[in-house]
Amino acid sequence: MIRYPLIVFSLFFSSVLFAQSDQNVKEDFKPSSLNQPGQEYPQVNSQGYARFKILAPAADSVRVSLGLGGKGGTKLTKGNDGFWTGTTAGPMDEGFHYYNINIDGGKFNDPGALNFYGSVRWESGIEIPAHDQAFYELRDVQHGHVQQILFPSKSTGTSRRAFVYTPPGYDKNKSTRYPVLYLQHGWGEDETAWTSQGRANLIMDNLTAEGKIKPFIIVMTYGMTNEVKWGRIHEFDIKHFQTVLVDELIPYVDSHFRTISDQRNRAMAGLSMGGMETKLITLNKPDVFSHYALLSGGTYKPEDIVDKSKVKLVFLSCGSKERPDGVKSAAAALQKAGMNAVSYISEGTAHEFQTWRRSLYQLAPLLFK
Amino acid sequence: MIRYPLIVFSLFFSSVLFAQSDQNVKEDFKPSSLNQPGQEYPQVNSQGYARFKILAPAADSVRVSLGLGGKGGTKLTKGNDGFWTGTTAGPMDEGFHYYNINIDGGKFNDPGALNFYGSVRWESGIEIPAHDQAFYELRDVQHGHVQQILFPSKSTGTSRRAFVYTPPGYDKNKSTRYPVLYLQHGWGEDETAWTSQGRANLIMDNLTAEGKIKPFIIVMTYGMTNEVKWGRIHEFDIKHFQTVLVDELIPYVDSHFRTISDQRNRAMAGLSMGGMETKLITLNKPDVFSHYALLSGGTYKPEDIVDKSKVKLVFLSCGSKERPDGVKSAAAALQKAGMNAVSYISEGTAHEFQTWRRSLYQLAPLLFK
Repeated sequence: MIRYPLIVFSLFFSSVLFAQSDQNVKEDFKPSSLNQPGQEYPQVNSQGYARFKILAPAADSVRVSLGLGGKGGTKLTKGNDGFWTGTTAGPMDEGFHYYNINIDGGKFNDPGALNFYGSVRWESGIEIPAHDQAFYELRDVQHGHVQQILFPSKSTGTSRRAFVYTPPGYDKNKSTRYPVLYLQHGWGEDETAWTSQGRANLIMDNLTAEGKIKPFIIVMTYGMTNEVKWGRIHEFDIKHFQTVLVDELIPYVDSHFRTISDQRNRAMAGLSMGGMETKLITLNKPDVFSHYALLSGGTYKPEDIVDKSKVKLVFLSCGSKERPDGVKSAAAALQKAGMNAVSYISEGTAHEFQTWRRSLYQLAPLLFK
Repeated sequence: MIRYPLIVFSLFFSSVLFAQSDQNVKEDFKPSSLNQPGQEYPQVNSQGYARFKILAPAADSVRVSLGLGGKGGTKLTKGNDGFWTGTTAGPMDEGFHYYNINIDGGKFNDPGALNFYGSVRWESGIEIPAHDQAFYELRDVQHGHVQQILFPSKSTGTSRRAFVYTPPGYDKNKSTRYPVLYLQHGWGEDETAWTSQGRANLIMDNLTAEGKIKPFIIVMTYGMTNEVKWGRIHEFDIKHFQTVLVDELIPYVDSHFRTISDQRNRAMAGLSMGGMETKLITLNKPDVFSHYALLSGGTYKPEDIVDKSKVKLVFLSCGSKERPDGVKSAAAALQKAGMNAVSYISEGTAHEFQTWRRSLYQLAPLLFK
C-alpha cells in the first residue's frame, strides 16, 4: 500500500505477447497498485480491463475468478514460456476487487497480488483506478495513526483485537478529547478490512487536510463473534457481538483513548452484514449511539426508532448497481418522520469496497456536527 | 493470531488417510496456530512433524518447500478425493517457518495458512510448538498497542510506514516518558515482521507482566530503502536508510510519542541484514544510539568502536545451528576491551524467527538499565 516500486513496463513486448487481445483494449496496462513489491502482474489499463499472468508450466487449466461473462471468470491461455495469461472480457468496475486463481481445480492466490481478508479467507486483491481516487490516495498531508489494540473480553474468554484510528494531531493536542465512530466490516471480512482495502485512515487524513470534518476516532473490531456460515445468517444472534462491543470494547476505548464518552459523541456504522449489526445494536442501545449509518446494509423504518429525539443522524447508502431505490425511499420516509436522514448512492458501483470508501467519504463530514 | 477456532479433528480418519506414514510419527496432529480461520491444514504434531493437505484435483505434481531431506522439500501424494497430502520426513525445528507450495511448476501459497512477508513475497507460515513458547503466547495480561504511523520522508519523496509498540500503561501514565528501541527486520522481510511472525509485542507484554523489564517503546520500519537483490547485497549503501531512520523517523517519533530523546535512552537492534544495518548505523552515529544488538547479524570488533564510553551495551546472538562460536568469541573480545557485551545462543534453532524471538526476550531486560 505504501511502497510504489518502479517498474519498467515494455509496451512493445506486451503488444506482441497479447496479440490475441480485443482490438478495442488499450495497451496501456500498468501493474495494479495492490501488487506485491516488484511484481509486474496483475495489470490494469486505463479502461479498467485487468490482465493476469501466472507461472504454472505443467498445469492443465488456470482460471481467474474475476471477470465478466458469467461465473467462469477469466480463462487464461498457456504460452510456450510456461506462463498463463489472459485479460478480462470487459472493463471492471472502478475500485477494489477480491479474486482468486483456480489451478487444476484448486483455489489459490495470485502470487503477484497482495492479500486481503474476505470470504473467510485471505484473497488476492486488485485495484482498478477510479476517476475519483484522489480522496483515498496516500497524499503528502498529516497522517493519523492506526493502532492495534488487544482488549480483554470476558464474554469470549480471550484478548480480542481491534484497530483504532486516531486523527492527525491526536498526539500533539494532549488535552483534546474526540468523538468516536465504531465501524464494522462485512461478512467474511475482519477488523483489517476498513484500513486495508477500505483505506479509511487515508480517507480521514485527506478529509482532515481539506478541513472538511470535525476530527474523530474510528474503532474497528471483528464482528463475527459467533461463527456463522454464509447461507445460515438467520442463525446469527447479535447478543454475543453486542456484549463484546458495548460492554467490553467501548469501556476499554474510553479508558485508553481521549474520547468524549457520551451518547451524543458516539456513532456506529457498518457495511453489508456490519450494517445489519449496526441496525440491531443501535436499536437495542439507543443510549449508547446517536449517529447510525448502514452502508449496503439495509434500512431503518421510522417505526423502528422509538425515541427519535435521541438520533442525530441516519445515513443510508449503497451502490447504484445494488438497490438504490430502497435506500432513497427509506431515507425519505425517515425525513418525513422528522429525522435527520441522508441517503447516498455510489454511481457505477456494486456491493464492493468502492461503494463503501465513497460512503465513508460522504458520511464523515456529517458526523458529530 | 488472535482467534482460535474450534476444529474437530478426527483421529480415526487421519490414521486411515495417512496409513503410509512413518510408524514413529505420533498421530496427534493439530492445525497449526497460524492457519487461516477455520482451516484444518497444515497440521503439526507433538514431535514437530508438519502435515499438509492441498486440493488440486487435476494437478500432476504438488510439493511443499518445507521439509527435510534436501531442497526438494516434501512431495505430496494425490488421493482419490483430489486432495494432495504429505508429512515432512522428520521433525522441524521449533518455532516459525516460511514456506510455499509448488503446483505444476508454479509457486503459490497454502490456502490453509496465513501469510507473512519474507523472501520479498508474502509466504505461507507454519508454527511448530516450542517447549518455551509461553514467553511469546497471547496471555491474559495488560497489552501494549501497536501503531501504524505514516511519517514524512523527504529523502524518498513519500510517506513511509512504521509500526510503533507502546507498552502497557502508556495511555494511562500520561506524563511518563520512555526509552526507544529501533528494531529492524531481515532481508526480504518488512516492517510487519517483528510484530507478526516475531511476536515482539506479546514478548514485551509478557515481560512487562512479569516485571522483568523497564518499559520502553519499539519502532519498526522498512529497511530496504534502496532496492537490492539477494546476491548483490554488497551494492547496498547504508546512507539511504540511515537518512530515513536518523533524520526522518527519529524526529517524527520524538515529536509524536512520549520518548526520552537522548542517546542514553535510544537503542538499535536488527536481525540478519537488519543486524548489518544496525552495525553500520550505530558506528556511523555514536551520538544517536547507546545500546547495540545484532541478532544473527554479525559482530563488532573492539577496534570498530572508537569511543567505548558511549556504548552501554553490545548484545550479540544467533542460533546454535548458525555460528555460535563467532558470536561468543566476539562478545568475549569486547568484554576484554572493557565493554558491557553479552552473547546469547538460541539452542536448537537456525537462521529463523525462533532464534530472534528468543534473542529479543533475552535482550529486552538488559536495555536501559
